[in-house]
Amino acid sequence: MGHPVVAVAIVFVSAAIAMAASSQYSHHPLDPLTATEITAIRAAVLASPLVPARPLFFHYVGLDEPDKPDVLSYAYGAADAAATSSQMTLPRRAFVIARAGGQSHEFTVDIAADNASVLSHAVHRGPGFPMFTDEDQIAAMALPYTYPPFVESVRRRGLDVGEVGCGVLSRGWFGAEQPAYGGARVVKMKCVVVDYNATANIYARPVEGVVMVVDLDRMAIIGYRDRAVFTVPKAEGTDYRADKVGPPFTGPAAPPGVVTNGIDQIGGKVSRAHGAGSADESFWHEQQGKKTRIISLASVNDTDAGGLKRRVLYRGFVSEIFVPYMDPEEEWYFHTFTDAGEYGLGALASQLQRGADCPANAVYMDGYYAGSDGKPVKAEDVICLFERYAGDVAWRHTNGIGLGGLFSEVRPDVTLVVRMVVTVGNYDYTLDSEFKTVGSIKIMVSLSGILEMKAINYTHVDQIREDTHGTLITENTIGVYHDHFVTYHLDLDIDGTRNSFIKNNIVPKRNTGVRATGGAPTPRRSYWTVLYEVAETEAEGQVNINSAPADLLFVNPSKKTKIGNEVGYRLIPTGATAMSLLADDDYPERRASYTKKQVWVTPYNKSEKWASGLYAEQSTGDDNLAAWSKRNRSIKDEDIVLWYTVGLHHVPYQEDFPVMPTISGALEVRPSNFFERNPLIRTKPPENSPNCSCSIGGSA
Amino acid sequence: MGHPVVAVAIVFVSAAIAMAASSQYSHHPLDPLTATEITAIRAAVLASPLVPARPLFFHYVGLDEPDKPDVLSYAYGAADAAATSSQMTLPRRAFVIARAGGQSHEFTVDIAADNASVLSHAVHRGPGFPMFTDEDQIAAMALPYTYPPFVESVRRRGLDVGEVGCGVLSRGWFGAEQPAYGGARVVKMKCVVVDYNATANIYARPVEGVVMVVDLDRMAIIGYRDRAVFTVPKAEGTDYRADKVGPPFTGPAAPPGVVTNGIDQIGGKVSRAHGAGSADESFWHEQQGKKTRIISLASVNDTDAGGLKRRVLYRGFVSEIFVPYMDPEEEWYFHTFTDAGEYGLGALASQLQRGADCPANAVYMDGYYAGSDGKPVKAEDVICLFERYAGDVAWRHTNGIGLGGLFSEVRPDVTLVVRMVVTVGNYDYTLDSEFKTVGSIKIMVSLSGILEMKAINYTHVDQIREDTHGTLITENTIGVYHDHFVTYHLDLDIDGTRNSFIKNNIVPKRNTGVRATGGAPTPRRSYWTVLYEVAETEAEGQVNINSAPADLLFVNPSKKTKIGNEVGYRLIPTGATAMSLLADDDYPERRASYTKKQVWVTPYNKSEKWASGLYAEQSTGDDNLAAWSKRNRSIKDEDIVLWYTVGLHHVPYQEDFPVMPTISGALEVRPSNFFERNPLIRTKPPENSPNCSCSIGGSA
Repeated sequence: MGHPVVAVAIVFVSAAIAMAASSQYSHHPLDPLTATEITAIRAAVLASPLVPARPLFFHYVGLDEPDKPDVLSYAYGAADAAATSSQMTLPRRAFVIARAGGQSHEFTVDIAADNASVLSHAVHRGPGFPMFTDEDQIAAMALPYTYPPFVESVRRRGLDVGEVGCGVLSRGWFGAEQPAYGGARVVKMKCVVVDYNATANIYARPVEGVVMVVDLDRMAIIGYRDRAVFTVPKAEGTDYRADKVGPPFTGPAAPPGVVTNGIDQIGGKVSRAHGAGSADESFWHEQQGKKTRIISLASVNDTDAGGLKRRVLYRGFVSEIFVPYMDPEEEWYFHTFTDAGEYGLGALASQLQRGADCPANAVYMDGYYAGSDGKPVKAEDVICLFERYAGDVAWRHTNGIGLGGLFSEVRPDVTLVVRMVVTVGNYDYTLDSEFKTVGSIKIMVSLSGILEMKAINYTHVDQIREDTHGTLITENTIGVYHDHFVTYHLDLDIDGTRNSFIKNNIVPKRNTGVRATGGAPTPRRSYWTVLYEVAETEAEGQVNINSAPADLLFVNPSKKTKIGNEVGYRLIPTGATAMSLLADDDYPERRASYTKKQVWVTPYNKSEKWASGLYAEQSTGDDNLAAWSKRNRSIKDEDIVLWYTVGLHHVPYQEDFPVMPTISGALEVRPSNFFERNPLIRTKPPENSPNCSCSIGGSA
Repeated sequence: MGHPVVAVAIVFVSAAIAMAASSQYSHHPLDPLTATEITAIRAAVLASPLVPARPLFFHYVGLDEPDKPDVLSYAYGAADAAATSSQMTLPRRAFVIARAGGQSHEFTVDIAADNASVLSHAVHRGPGFPMFTDEDQIAAMALPYTYPPFVESVRRRGLDVGEVGCGVLSRGWFGAEQPAYGGARVVKMKCVVVDYNATANIYARPVEGVVMVVDLDRMAIIGYRDRAVFTVPKAEGTDYRADKVGPPFTGPAAPPGVVTNGIDQIGGKVSRAHGAGSADESFWHEQQGKKTRIISLASVNDTDAGGLKRRVLYRGFVSEIFVPYMDPEEEWYFHTFTDAGEYGLGALASQLQRGADCPANAVYMDGYYAGSDGKPVKAEDVICLFERYAGDVAWRHTNGIGLGGLFSEVRPDVTLVVRMVVTVGNYDYTLDSEFKTVGSIKIMVSLSGILEMKAINYTHVDQIREDTHGTLITENTIGVYHDHFVTYHLDLDIDGTRNSFIKNNIVPKRNTGVRATGGAPTPRRSYWTVLYEVAETEAEGQVNINSAPADLLFVNPSKKTKIGNEVGYRLIPTGATAMSLLADDDYPERRASYTKKQVWVTPYNKSEKWASGLYAEQSTGDDNLAAWSKRNRSIKDEDIVLWYTVGLHHVPYQEDFPVMPTISGALEVRPSNFFERNPLIRTKPPENSPNCSCSIGGSA
């Protein structure tokens, strides 16, 4: 169960296969739901006598994945015939959250049989709500146009009601300090000037000072405040559409480009991107169930071990994106978004622009999600997959002439990138998983899109005397300070299910002169060494990676290399390691308290997927990653999960306006004593005579 | 003055031009020395009566660059005719360090005239020595073969003297705790088994236990110790040459590849890589003196300001690479290398493998340095330059359908990469400068090559009871713990010479409920804001970037954007932020004391280029970056220099054997209120119909 991001982002190839295949297609157990299945699930829920209330809106429809041991048995126990038959008996189920009669209903639906049927039903009793539906938002956005106080506010500002538009903003949770509205599903709305003739940049022209409160279940405005009038920033200079900004153009008229031009030459090293289902010889083995590939069962080929397929990752996905703004003012304090849990990343996946979002050699895949009416919605070209050669080397060495042998051995690096772009209102998150031939997985998030802007009456920095909680980025416009915390759920299974989390602490030592090996004392006074520490429980699995140097490893304590090292992967943070600076007692921090450490390690639990909880909308923090971890369960030699948060404090600059240049953060998990030696030693060198000039024509 | 790295690495295009041009070629004042000039310099020094002692060896021959104001006037004052004539009058001088009669001699040589002549001479009186020459090392390596105790040691180990080779290792500096040898130029030597029939990996088979002391000026072994015999690790499994490791190959037979396939389409956005001297329309303006391009005078085109060329970087280069090993044992304690200062990076630049070290679309350039006899040595293909399209976007936004306009604008990112690979014995450092169209410079170092290995008698981890100061990476072999600190000298001149260093400290605040703008109190309890802090003096210019969150900016306090923000660039660290863990009183730390902070800012001083000092070999730390900074000079509104250290604690793993997969660290300097808005707004979108399949043939 979970937000649709999984169904779209991770089980990415099967999504494409599912689209092409008939309903009789034999599923891999982790395949996302097909359009046919979504249709059947809808029918089963609507036909169920358990929830007669109408209208009924579907807020979440996703795969209720089989138990992990069953999936593992299906995937890795297939060496014998018995396992093949077990493939047929795994349950195929969906998990559904629907709202009806003012309640959140949970359904488990059996879809293995010809006709889907509801297996179980429950009403969610705790705090929080499922994420908004498109319908929620579209209906709410229509309300202000006929709401007299708003029409008056617009008029006060010299605007026409037809040239404004309002958007649904989650109101966060602030305990008893915020009206309860009887536990209703309440949001706020704020508005902008919308005039595409003047500018595409709707976020650049806020109607500041006006905030509405909307009850989504009653679909009515239940609160309204127009505190003060602020200048609406001008449209000029805010547009970013090519036909509105130039000439002069500054180039490049960037080429569609390819990032490898020799995919056919690469052979089986990484999965070939051309044509689904051709991954059989991949170094990165993604699980193949009837020619589907599922990154969530990523394993690597160990050539030195006779091509043995060794497990690395059971399932990995973006669990939450927490974006708190740093303006405590009335109109801004509640801007504390949990994008995945409130808005849902899967449904917000952008259709990728061919030749722009991904290179010319990319293949594209579609996804499906359920609309609020339960019917399948096709999301076209929401995933791309391409091989990348960025001009870098996987390894090299030049042997010097000094000892008689001058030669160089160099191996270029070619990787496989899987990409999805999620646009959550103003922000665009490019979510990449990059599979490297060395066995690494690099997980990167790149931020672009448009800042959230606040209108202000100042036109020059010299006029400002108080803290505006942001940067004056153009006249009458503040780019408000904020954070981005992108939390990944990475269920690593390093060479098997039971792993331990190791902190190889890098600690300074004084040279005492005592020599274990009998050497003479030396004048060296200090050095560092590695202190091996096994994290026993969840409390020891929480790490601030900036506090002290350590290599952080996930090892399989039952598997050793031939010379006795524990096989493992290590975590390499790559920029963007900010942590939350909010006070522990502040409400948004309580909801996302896990953002104070980059690293958490928990024992696998099928229900613990969403760092802010399944019902993240107006959640209170009692069902989040930090809350689960308070049980302080054992994580030693267990099936464990790494949660990693990429964090950025975002101080806007003028260059972020009117649209932000991309900025990125990443992490990598990299084999470390996993292989007996560098797995790329047997890689062939390139042919040294390039015979492709590959010019596309055109001229400067 | 300085190590040859500058002459080769940074002034990269002019090096190529210089090679092609005649001696009558009119120089840009920062051009590196040509072969003709080096020949003339040699003649002038040898003809000078000031140093009659012979033999005389050339340890350093480099450009003595003109004073910065003169260069700036030449480069940026060229709008009027007077400046053109001033170009002719700038002095052209070389700085030379030569050893003769047991002393280090410094010469300044005038080469502007037809005949070079010595202008000044001095004898270096302080501690430390210039870097080794090739001749130093080659002569020293020949000594052991006729040294009876060594021949005996080799025999004791069952080896033939013909199958071993020894290398020169700097002995560091350990004050009075190490023999002074009368102030002689002394190094150590250690040996390995060299048998290219058995393996190319000479570093994998150390003759452990044997250390020699060599006086380089007398060229004699003056100390010898064979402490104990250790097993020589086996050759099997250590080779990395393609013809020795397979089959089976694991692929990829990686393609030569190109990383853009439409350079001609790109227009003037980044410098076109095909053909030297075609950079006239570059967004990144590298200075053109008679069609040369010098990265050290990097500026950007500001299209919104009518194509104004605005300065960013006066000169940037790798200043030092400090690599201390963490084994305090007799044979290892002194492994505390300052690679640039002891060995010289320029002379160690590897000939790049076409189609492997750089993509097929790269152009290659040569360099020149002076050999120990003073004659010019041509270093072929040591620099490459290519445009990179790695499949990523410079910016994007998808406007949602909610407010009536569903559209996407996406701009692919194409960058210009300048690359040099320096192989210092076992390690290979790929040094990249990447110029981005957004105005960023990303500076990256990628490490590959071969570990320094220690032979040990253990074959399995279970046998080990003591701290071996490294990882057992194969039988009988320890990969010794060590650090890499790559220190960059970046003389930023943000929109002019006088800059300030700003710490925009990101500090948590309690929400007091007091509202400057008159809004109601809010339940939000905390937020963060930015506290602007100008670094007044050098002490305030030192920053541990992991200690507290801050945006670090270099601004021009005299230049503001139209709305009043100081124009600036900010520093973005990207991984590899380790700092030295050595004790402050330890000798190697005293020599490289600047490795305890990633960031130092100093006022520009022509003589302060080399973080470990000009005479880094056996230096004592009294002439290094930290020593200079103790003067605590003003750095506010001055011509200031950023020193940034990329640091890695390297705990070896088995995958690092027999050759290391690449691992990288980087920093970026990025415009931040430098432009009035995103400088890529006027970028044209790509044509959306890719018409190049670019397959090179071959098949999987």
